[in-house]
Amino acid sequence: MHEIKTLGVETELHRFFAAARLRASDYGDHYVALWDALDQASRGGKRVRPALVLAAYDGFGGTDHALSTPVAVSFELLHTAFLIHDDVIDGDLSRRGMANISGRFTARALEYGARTLQAEAWASTAAILAGDLALSEAHRALALLPVDTEMRGRLLGLLDRAVFVSAAGELADVTNTVSRVPLTIDQVITTLEHKTAIYSFEAPLQAGAVLAGAPEEAIDALGLFGRLIGIAFQLTDDLLGVFGDPETTGKSVLADLREGKQTALIAHASATDRWPLIAPFLGKHDLTEAEADQVRNHLRDCGAPETADALAREYASRAVDALETPVMPDVLRVTLTQLALSAVTRRK
Amino acid sequence: MHEIKTLGVETELHRFFAAARLRASDYGDHYVALWDALDQASRGGKRVRPALVLAAYDGFGGTDHALSTPVAVSFELLHTAFLIHDDVIDGDLSRRGMANISGRFTARALEYGARTLQAEAWASTAAILAGDLALSEAHRALALLPVDTEMRGRLLGLLDRAVFVSAAGELADVTNTVSRVPLTIDQVITTLEHKTAIYSFEAPLQAGAVLAGAPEEAIDALGLFGRLIGIAFQLTDDLLGVFGDPETTGKSVLADLREGKQTALIAHASATDRWPLIAPFLGKHDLTEAEADQVRNHLRDCGAPETADALAREYASRAVDALETPVMPDVLRVTLTQLALSAVTRRK
Repeated sequence: MHEIKTLGVETELHRFFAAARLRASDYGDHYVALWDALDQASRGGKRVRPALVLAAYDGFGGTDHALSTPVAVSFELLHTAFLIHDDVIDGDLSRRGMANISGRFTARALEYGARTLQAEAWASTAAILAGDLALSEAHRALALLPVDTEMRGRLLGLLDRAVFVSAAGELADVTNTVSRVPLTIDQVITTLEHKTAIYSFEAPLQAGAVLAGAPEEAIDALGLFGRLIGIAFQLTDDLLGVFGDPETTGKSVLADLREGKQTALIAHASATDRWPLIAPFLGKHDLTEAEADQVRNHLRDCGAPETADALAREYASRAVDALETPVMPDVLRVTLTQLALSAVTRRK
Repeated sequence: MHEIKTLGVETELHRFFAAARLRASDYGDHYVALWDALDQASRGGKRVRPALVLAAYDGFGGTDHALSTPVAVSFELLHTAFLIHDDVIDGDLSRRGMANISGRFTARALEYGARTLQAEAWASTAAILAGDLALSEAHRALALLPVDTEMRGRLLGLLDRAVFVSAAGELADVTNTVSRVPLTIDQVITTLEHKTAIYSFEAPLQAGAVLAGAPEEAIDALGLFGRLIGIAFQLTDDLLGVFGDPETTGKSVLADLREGKQTALIAHASATDRWPLIAPFLGKHDLTEAEADQVRNHLRDCGAPETADALAREYASRAVDALETPVMPDVLRVTLTQLALSAVTRRK
């Protein structure tokens, strides 16, 4: 959605990274390489968050893209920062099928003759710093907006809530993965909401609407829509993470199982008699394709994919219901309804 | 210095953490524990950066502490964020003689029955997130300041430079430690300047002065003073890190040697005939007290501590010279001259 509208965001990001790279050249080749890696980390996503900012802004009659573009950029860079630090936390060296910042810096260190352990330490350093730089620019893009004090306070409040709640969600997510105690489906959903739905859907939609001067009732409705659709999106993500087609999604269907990720699939299965057949394989770092097939069969047998899919559709449907208020502009309602549909029918 | 003036900063930080802790209680005990750990991480320092903001602001006739306090808080939280992420990068579990965030969360994980590797992963997660939260609030404190667009742009520019240059310095510092190729003294000084002097001295002084409406000439002079005194401070720090009294400094005199930290001491020694006797012990993770004594003797024999001390005094002296401009208020010049003296005569 909104491929054309987010062109302004691409241009702005391109300008930002070009300036940063030039500035970094005063501090040596490695720092330039760090900015190159950060630039690359910010690409290749679906630009969902900028599109939501712009859809809400335009939907409520906003016309000044010199204001909406930096807000869209802010939420995209916040996303970039979170992905980068998430990869450090998970010890991942790739993202979207390509070497991520740690992956690039590990290779760079080995090229320079470093030993493996040193290379890893150096690569984590680069990734932690890159995340800090992206996070800083996310704040800066909003802070520099030429709006009045009240508007700035509201936008910064949305960003602050996004950071605060996402950190809570990330901590809970890692706690859950480490603890291995099966969660209830409600606990899974709360973690998805905190870790992803607020910063990815609620906050960008509300920021666009606030900037356009939308009525409070509409901002509340967008918040509710955002939380619900964010949950639906993540439920589908977790489903595709085990049952998707890797050729289409570009993601391994082993990673979530190997990590022992606590998804709705797992929460459902843990309350069935198939659980003893599934549990031993979760979090098994060297899980084979054949073992994963077995786990998938057991998950199917106990109805886990149907449950997760039905749940995602229920959340998407409730999200669409949240748009049923006369203060919601028709064009925006149509766009967001399409988004809700695609959230649960997508194959990637 | 300025113990009384920074009381407002303590009050403000206390208020911020109390509010965050309350808010975190909606997201579970671990998140409250994370905020407790972040609160503790922000304590126990010398509050040098807030004191510099306030000294410069007051020195140029600023009187509105409702403006200067948030700026001072911003630089203190920036410092907290950098220390936290620095500890993650170095794999340290303590700071200032107490368990740091990773240390506290490692203990917490073990209490909850986690295995060691899991505990470490969980603890790094907590520390990375805590740094992100502190960094976010550093930005937010400045962004919310009720000043005009031009003033906000200037203050945000100083914060942006501080983040940008510090990240370059941190990357260089870790690169140097990993690479083990001895540096020249000039290279050591450049790294100190980038990693610490800009964000700790230049930026806080300039921010206070800018906020008070100081003339450009004074802001430039404070920038130069800040870079030079920052270097002097760090040279002394590195000297105390090997030759200090641990009872007074509260710091181990083994840590820098074990880490293989590239200091002016090491840079000096690497160009003398004592180097072959010193090099094998640098970066030796299990360096004993007796071996450290040997290294200290060799460093003394080749005049390393005298060189580092003389260099620190030279930078402090050049810093004081930078204050010799008629636009510098007398009270501020006296305060900063005392600071310059204490930078190189301190024992902790």
